[in-house]
Amino acid sequence: MTLPPSARALIESGRLAHLGTTNADGSPQVSVVWAGIDGDDIVIAHMGSGAKVRNIVRDPRVVISFDSEEANEIGMKHTLIVHGEAMLTPGGAPELLQQLARVYVSPDAVLPPFPDPPPGHVIHVRVTRVGGVGPWAEG
Amino acid sequence: MTLPPSARALIESGRLAHLGTTNADGSPQVSVVWAGIDGDDIVIAHMGSGAKVRNIVRDPRVVISFDSEEANEIGMKHTLIVHGEAMLTPGGAPELLQQLARVYVSPDAVLPPFPDPPPGHVIHVRVTRVGGVGPWAEG
Repeated sequence: MTLPPSARALIESGRLAHLGTTNADGSPQVSVVWAGIDGDDIVIAHMGSGAKVRNIVRDPRVVISFDSEEANEIGMKHTLIVHGEAMLTPGGAPELLQQLARVYVSPDAVLPPFPDPPPGHVIHVRVTRVGGVGPWAEG
Repeated sequence: MTLPPSARALIESGRLAHLGTTNADGSPQVSVVWAGIDGDDIVIAHMGSGAKVRNIVRDPRVVISFDSEEANEIGMKHTLIVHGEAMLTPGGAPELLQQLARVYVSPDAVLPPFPDPPPGHVIHVRVTRVGGVGPWAEG
């Protein structure tokens, strides 16, 4: 599905993404990461081969949650929950991290160079369902 | 384990908690919730019997993640990841929600009364491991 424009705007505003996957032993795993938008997908860069990458290789089902500074009429903050299927593509992680640093750190942020940069992975998440509390969850 | 004072302070500052559990089919579940501290435990109130409660009954392993407005020296925001074992106790949810509303909404917040308040559940999370990026992850 296509992300509602309100959800897209929240993600592009630089709110951190809480990425949930499932470990091999069935326990839950959550990483807090930078996220961007590529077409209809949410994209996340990963330099190594940590737990979330191994989990996605085994089971591509993911949930990504965001909170917001906006609140509803009784003062409860908006939250965005995105369900999706993750696809791992090799390479491109340093470039995507540099692009996201301009959103998450500052518009002129330059990441320190890696001495011998590994290409890493980009995680593309195809969105299957959107929930939470906010304009993206209405109608 | 006992939460490091820095982690405790972050939680008590009213940052939203991203609670990760595992669904019956092995897919990840994340809910964004209010969280408080009771002794050494993190406490979360739930009025109904939604997915996270059913998941915890089946498998008590949870992860709770928080982000922070504080950042490290290169501008990356601090994040707190708490691993733990959840225990469900019946009752007490409306009272805990009212207490947390004073942190998460405003110091004089009064939640609208439930017409026929269900007692709900309180989720106590015994902390087993703390990670992320921030003072709680050092040393």
